[in-house]
Amino acid sequence: MIRTDGRKIDELRKTRIIPGAQTFAEGSVIVETGLTRVLCSASIEDGVPRFLKGTGQGWITAEYSMLPRATLTRTSRERGSSGLKGRTQEIQRLIGRSLRASTNLQLLGERTLTMDCDVLQADGGTRTAAITGAYVAVYQALRSLVQSRKLKAMPIRCAIAATSVGIFEEEVLLDLDYEEDYRAQVDFNLVMTDQGKFVEIQGTAEDGTFSRTMLDKVLNTAEVGITSLLAIQSETIEGL
Amino acid sequence: MIRTDGRKIDELRKTRIIPGAQTFAEGSVIVETGLTRVLCSASIEDGVPRFLKGTGQGWITAEYSMLPRATLTRTSRERGSSGLKGRTQEIQRLIGRSLRASTNLQLLGERTLTMDCDVLQADGGTRTAAITGAYVAVYQALRSLVQSRKLKAMPIRCAIAATSVGIFEEEVLLDLDYEEDYRAQVDFNLVMTDQGKFVEIQGTAEDGTFSRTMLDKVLNTAEVGITSLLAIQSETIEGL
Amino acid sequence: MIRTDGRKIDELRKTRIIPGAQTFAEGSVIVETGLTRVLCSASIEDGVPRFLKGTGQGWITAEYSMLPRATLTRTSRERGSSGLKGRTQEIQRLIGRSLRASTNLQLLGERTLTMDCDVLQADGGTRTAAITGAYVAVYQALRSLVQSRKLKAMPIRCAIAATSVGIFEEEVLLDLDYEEDYRAQVDFNLVMTDQGKFVEIQGTAEDGTFSRTMLDKVLNTAEVGITSLLAIQSETIEGL
Amino acid sequence: MIRTDGRKIDELRKTRIIPGAQTFAEGSVIVETGLTRVLCSASIEDGVPRFLKGTGQGWITAEYSMLPRATLTRTSRERGSSGLKGRTQEIQRLIGRSLRASTNLQLLGERTLTMDCDVLQADGGTRTAAITGAYVAVYQALRSLVQSRKLKAMPIRCAIAATSVGIFEEEVLLDLDYEEDYRAQVDFNLVMTDQGKFVEIQGTAEDGTFSRTMLDKVLNTAEVGITSLLAIQSETIEGL
Amino acid sequence: MIRTDGRKIDELRKTRIIPGAQTFAEGSVIVETGLTRVLCSASIEDGVPRFLKGTGQGWITAEYSMLPRATLTRTSRERGSSGLKGRTQEIQRLIGRSLRASTNLQLLGERTLTMDCDVLQADGGTRTAAITGAYVAVYQALRSLVQSRKLKAMPIRCAIAATSVGIFEEEVLLDLDYEEDYRAQVDFNLVMTDQGKFVEIQGTAEDGTFSRTMLDKVLNTAEVGITSLLAIQSETIEGL
Amino acid sequence: MIRTDGRKIDELRKTRIIPGAQTFAEGSVIVETGLTRVLCSASIEDGVPRFLKGTGQGWITAEYSMLPRATLTRTSRERGSSGLKGRTQEIQRLIGRSLRASTNLQLLGERTLTMDCDVLQADGGTRTAAITGAYVAVYQALRSLVQSRKLKAMPIRCAIAATSVGIFEEEVLLDLDYEEDYRAQVDFNLVMTDQGKFVEIQGTAEDGTFSRTMLDKVLNTAEVGITSLLAIQSETIEGL
Repeated sequence: MIRTDGRKIDELRKTRIIPGAQTFAEGSVIVETGLTRVLCSASIEDGVPRFLKGTGQGWITAEYSMLPRATLTRTSRERGSSGLKGRTQEIQRLIGRSLRASTNLQLLGERTLTMDCDVLQADGGTRTAAITGAYVAVYQALRSLVQSRKLKAMPIRCAIAATSVGIFEEEVLLDLDYEEDYRAQVDFNLVMTDQGKFVEIQGTAEDGTFSRTMLDKVLNTAEVGITSLLAIQSETIEGL
Repeated sequence: MIRTDGRKIDELRKTRIIPGAQTFAEGSVIVETGLTRVLCSASIEDGVPRFLKGTGQGWITAEYSMLPRATLTRTSRERGSSGLKGRTQEIQRLIGRSLRASTNLQLLGERTLTMDCDVLQADGGTRTAAITGAYVAVYQALRSLVQSRKLKAMPIRCAIAATSVGIFEEEVLLDLDYEEDYRAQVDFNLVMTDQGKFVEIQGTAEDGTFSRTMLDKVLNTAEVGITSLLAIQSETIEGL
Repeated sequence: MIRTDGRKIDELRKTRIIPGAQTFAEGSVIVETGLTRVLCSASIEDGVPRFLKGTGQGWITAEYSMLPRATLTRTSRERGSSGLKGRTQEIQRLIGRSLRASTNLQLLGERTLTMDCDVLQADGGTRTAAITGAYVAVYQALRSLVQSRKLKAMPIRCAIAATSVGIFEEEVLLDLDYEEDYRAQVDFNLVMTDQGKFVEIQGTAEDGTFSRTMLDKVLNTAEVGITSLLAIQSETIEGL
Repeated sequence: MIRTDGRKIDELRKTRIIPGAQTFAEGSVIVETGLTRVLCSASIEDGVPRFLKGTGQGWITAEYSMLPRATLTRTSRERGSSGLKGRTQEIQRLIGRSLRASTNLQLLGERTLTMDCDVLQADGGTRTAAITGAYVAVYQALRSLVQSRKLKAMPIRCAIAATSVGIFEEEVLLDLDYEEDYRAQVDFNLVMTDQGKFVEIQGTAEDGTFSRTMLDKVLNTAEVGITSLLAIQSETIEGL
Repeated sequence: MIRTDGRKIDELRKTRIIPGAQTFAEGSVIVETGLTRVLCSASIEDGVPRFLKGTGQGWITAEYSMLPRATLTRTSRERGSSGLKGRTQEIQRLIGRSLRASTNLQLLGERTLTMDCDVLQADGGTRTAAITGAYVAVYQALRSLVQSRKLKAMPIRCAIAATSVGIFEEEVLLDLDYEEDYRAQVDFNLVMTDQGKFVEIQGTAEDGTFSRTMLDKVLNTAEVGITSLLAIQSETIEGL
Repeated sequence: MIRTDGRKIDELRKTRIIPGAQTFAEGSVIVETGLTRVLCSASIEDGVPRFLKGTGQGWITAEYSMLPRATLTRTSRERGSSGLKGRTQEIQRLIGRSLRASTNLQLLGERTLTMDCDVLQADGGTRTAAITGAYVAVYQALRSLVQSRKLKAMPIRCAIAATSVGIFEEEVLLDLDYEEDYRAQVDFNLVMTDQGKFVEIQGTAEDGTFSRTMLDKVLNTAEVGITSLLAIQSETIEGL
C-alpha cells in the first residue's frame, strides 16, 4: 500500500516542537506533525483539588479543545449546556493520566499544573501530538519552579511521548494522518517512556478485530516512532 | 499475595447471567460478578441516526448509569446541567463500540439498538460485566427480530465478552474487585471474541509503567477469564 | 365494568415488599404491585441542608427516577441540561413530604436520609408504590441507627402507605394499572397513616370534574386499600 | 385565634380583578387578593404541540414566575441552567390542568393558549389567585376569537376559581396570607367550578395529619370562598 | 418625515415615573414612556461580591427581563439552559455601569444594591427608560439607608438619565418607538448626568454609517431630551 | 504622562496582519498589536439563519474566544452550562455588526460567513484588533468566492478598521494596552470606514464622566489610528 504522502509504513510525519508560543505561560510549545498543529501551554497555580488537600502532593490536569477552523470544514465550539463531547473528555483524561505518570507529584508539592492543549490545525493524531508536546511544556514549567528555587529538584520520573498506529488490510502503519485514520480497521494510541515502558495502550477495532501477532507488530512499530519523538523532545529541551 | 476473597490470581469471581430482568424489553439480563450486578436491556427501534440514513445500515449505541446506592456510600445522580462525567462517557463509548464490532450492522438494516446498562451494585469491573451481559441481551433482542421474521438471519459476527486484569506489585490478577482495582498500579480492560481475537485493549498505568513481558502475562490471563465468560454466555443463550 | 385483570373494583393488585435489594444501603426494598416494581433505598448521612444547620433537626429528601426500559417502549433518561421534568419533581416532592410527615425529625438529629426510588418496571401507580416501599426502607435504616446506639428511640411518628384511586364512568377503582390510569377521568393519589389520618390527598380531574359524593366514595375505597398495604408493611418489618 | 388582619376564619381577603394590564395580549388581568398581586395574560397562537397535531383539538399551557422583588427579601430569578424549581413546575402544571378542565379544547381547534402568570407581589395564595385571574383572561381571549369570527361559539365548559384553606390548631382558615400559610399544619389548594364540582383538591400535611371530619370542614370553607370569587369574576367579565 | 405619533423630531414621548410599585422593595418605580412601561426595583443587601470583600466599597448590579407578553406577539422567557441572550446581557451591563457611575460606592460601604428592571410593556427604548427610572429607585433606596441612620450622607455623585436617538434618512429623531427604531439606520443610546456630562454613548450603524456632523446633531438632540427627563426625575423625588 | 512603552499619546502599537494562519479556512489571518495576537478565520457555508431564508440575502456572524493562557494568569474556558459571559457576547455582537456594515449582504446571496476570532495572546484591545484583522479575512474569503465564479463582484461596501481610545487624567491615549486600559477613567471602542464615517462608537465611563470637548479629542485621535490601520490592511490585501 502507498501512503497518502508517500511515507514508509513505519515513518513519522515531519515533526517539530517549537517553544515560546504563549509569552505569559510557565511552559508553552507548538507541536507540529505533518499538518497537525497543537498549542500546549502549562500553567502552574498553588493549591490542589479538594481530594488532595493536606497530602503534600501535587496534581496535573489537562484540557483539550479544537479551534473551530482547525478542521476541513468548520466544527462548532463545545460551548453551551450540552457538556463536553465524550471524545473530548476521553482525550483530556488520557493526556492528564499520561503526564501524571511521568511526574513525581510528591516532589511537586501542593501545586496544580493545568495543561491546555488547543488544536490549531487537525490532520489526525492530535491527541498523541498533544502528549508529545505537553511533556516539553511541563518540563519547561517545572524547570522554572526549580530555577526560581521553589523546588529543589526536577519532579520528573521519566520522559514520555506518544504516537498512533493503525492496521489497514493487514498492514501496520505508523502515525496516521486524518484520511489513513478514517480508513484503518484498527486504531492504536500508545504512550511510552524513555525507559521503553508503556504508560497507556489503547487499541480499538470497531470495524474488525486483531490477533496477538498483529498486536506485536503494532508495538514494534510504535517503539520505532516514539524513539524518534523522544529524541526531538530532547533537542527542544536542550535548546530552551 | 492473597486476594481479597481468597481467589487464585487467574480465577474469575462467581459469575451468573440471568435473563428476563425487564419484561417489556426486547432483550434483558442481569449479569452478576461477585457483588457487582448490572441490568442490561436492549431496545430496538426503527430508524438510525442522521449520518446513517439511507445507507441501509443499522446502529448500536449504549448508555451506562449507576443507581445512587450501587456504591458503598451514596453517589449523586449524573442529572442536571453539568453533563455526563468523562468516566461515564468513556464507558458508554466502549460498550457501544464493542457491541458494534460483534454485530453485522448491514444485516440489521436501518434499526437502532439501544443498550441500557444500569449498575444495581458496584464492586469493580462494572464496565466489563456490562459488555459480557450486554452481548446476551443483544443476542436475545436480535433473535426476536428473526423469530418475528423481520430479519432472515441473525446479524451476529462473533460472540464477545470482557474482563479486567490488573498488575499489583508485579503480580497479574484476573477480574479485580473494587479494592483490588484501587490498589493496582496498572489496569486493563479487554474485550475478546469467541475466535480468540481482540476487539479492545485498554491498559492504563497512572501510578507506574509496564513492560512488554508484563503485557504478555496480562493477555494470557485475560484469555483464561474470557474463555470462561464465553461459556457462561453460551449456556444462558441455550436456556433462553 | 370489568377491570383489565379481572380484579374487583376495590381490590389491590398482588403486592409484595422484598427487603435486601441493595447490600450497601442502610435500608432497601423492592416493592411490587402487579407489574410495577420499584427499588427503594435509604441512605443516611450526617449533616443537614443549610436551612436546618444548628437546629438539631434532621431531614428527609427523595429522588425518583425510571430506568429507560421500565416502560413499554424506551423512555429517554432525564439527563442533560433541560432539568428534571415537572412530573418527576412533583413525585419527588410528594415522597419526601410524606416520609417527613411519618418521621420525628427532631429525634433523628442533624442527619439527612435520602430516599432513592428507582422504577425498575412501570405499570401505573409507581409513586404510591414508592411511598409504600419507602416507608419500610426508612424504618430499616432508622432501626440500624438505634441498633448501633446512634439513636435511643425510633424516630417514627406513624406508619404511612399510599395508593391510587380513579373515577371512570362514575365507577370508583382502587389501585389503577397503566391502562386504567390512562382511561380514568379523575385520578387520586392518597397517603394515609396507620391511625386512619390523611397525609396527602391529590385529586385531579383534567377531563371532567367530581362531586363531593364521589369524593366520599374515593376516600372509602382508598381506606380499604391502604389498610391492606399497612398490613403487608408490618409483615415485612417483622421479618427483617 | 385572631387572624393576621382581623378577618373571620371563612372570610376572603379583599379581592379585585382588573382587566387591561398588558395592551398587546389577547386577554390580560391583574388579580389582587390582599397584598398578593398577579398579572395573568393569555396569548393565542395557531398550532398545537406535536402530540395533538392533526387531532383538531387545541391546547392550553401555563407559565408561572415571580418577579424578584415580589417577596419580602429579594428572590433570585429562575434563570440559568439548573432548570425550574419543583415548586414552580407544580404550580404551572396545576394552572394548566385547571384551565384545560374549564375549556372545550375540541371547540378551540388547533390553537395554543399560553397563560403567563407573573407574580408582581407575593403574600400567600399566589397559585390560587393566578387560577382565579387566569380564568378571566382566558375568557377575554376566547371571546376575541368569537368576535373576530374565528370561532363560532365560546369554547368554555364551566367557570373555575380557586382558593387556599389551611388548618391551624384544629381551626379551618380561608385564604391564607403568607404568615398564616407558614404556620398552618395542613394546607389545601382547591379548584371548583360554577356548578359546585371539584377540578383539583390538593391537601398536604407536612407537619401533622388530618381526619375526614376536618377534610369536610375544609371543603365547606372552600365552597364559601370560591362562590364569592366566582361572583367577582362574573362582574369583571360583564364589565369587559 | 412625520413620526408615528405626530411628535416633533426632538420631542419625548409622554413620560411618567410612578413610585411605590412593589411594597416590599427598598426603592421601586414604574417608568412609562409612551407605551413602554418598566418596573424598576432596588434591593439592598449587606455584603459585596468576592472581588470587593474587605475594600469597604459597595456594588451595584442590574438585571433586565421582559415579561413574555410585553411584546406585540409573545416572546419566550429566557429560562432554561441556553443562558441569557446577548442583548439582555448587554442591557444589564449598561444599566449596572450607568448606576455605578452615578453613585459613590465608597460611601455606600460593603452593601450590594440589585436593580431589577422588568419590562411590563415594550414599545422601544426599554433600556433607556430603565436607566431613567432606576436612578429614582436607587435614590429612594439610598435615602432609606440615610433615614435609618445606616449611612450619614447620600452616596450620590450625580443624577443620570438616558434616552435613545436615531438617524432615519438623514433626519435625527429623539426617543424612538419600536417602529421608528426598526426603521432607523443608526441607533444611539446615551446616558448623561445633571452636569451635562456623558456616562455612556453607544452608536451603532448596522445598516449604514454616520459622519461627525450627524453625530453632533445626535448629541444636541439627546441633551434636549435628557434635560426634560432629569426634570421629571426631580419632581418624582420631591414627591417621594 | 509617559505611556507604558514610551509611545506618543496618538501612536499605535506595532501592528501586523499575517495571512495564512489556518490552511483549511476560506480566509485567515493573525493580527498582532503589541503583545495582543488574534487569529481570525472566515468560514463560508451555504444557507442562512431562518429569518433570512428566501430573501436572497446573506449573513455574517462572529464568535470570539480567548485561549486560557492568552492572559497573564490562566482564565477558565467559557465551557459548560453557565452560558457565555456578557463581555464575550458583547464583543461577538460588535464584531458581527461591524462586518455586516462593511459588506453587501444582498450581493453575498444566501450564504453565511462565520468569523472566528480566537485570542492567542491578550494585552488590551483584543476586540478592536479582531475587527481590524477580521476585515482582511472576510476580504480573502469573499475574493475566493469571486475567483471560483460563485460571485460576480466583490460584495464589499467599504473597508473597516477599529481601535480603542482612553481618557486618563484628562489625557487622550490611542490604542491602550492592558495596563493603560485598566487605569483609564473612560474607554472608547471605535469602528470607522475608509470613507471617514463611523460604524460604531462605544464610550463608557464607569469611573467618571466626559464632556463633549473631550469626546471631540477622542474622535480626532481615533481617526489618526484608524487611518494607519486601514493602510496596513491595504498592504496585506495587496500581498495576498
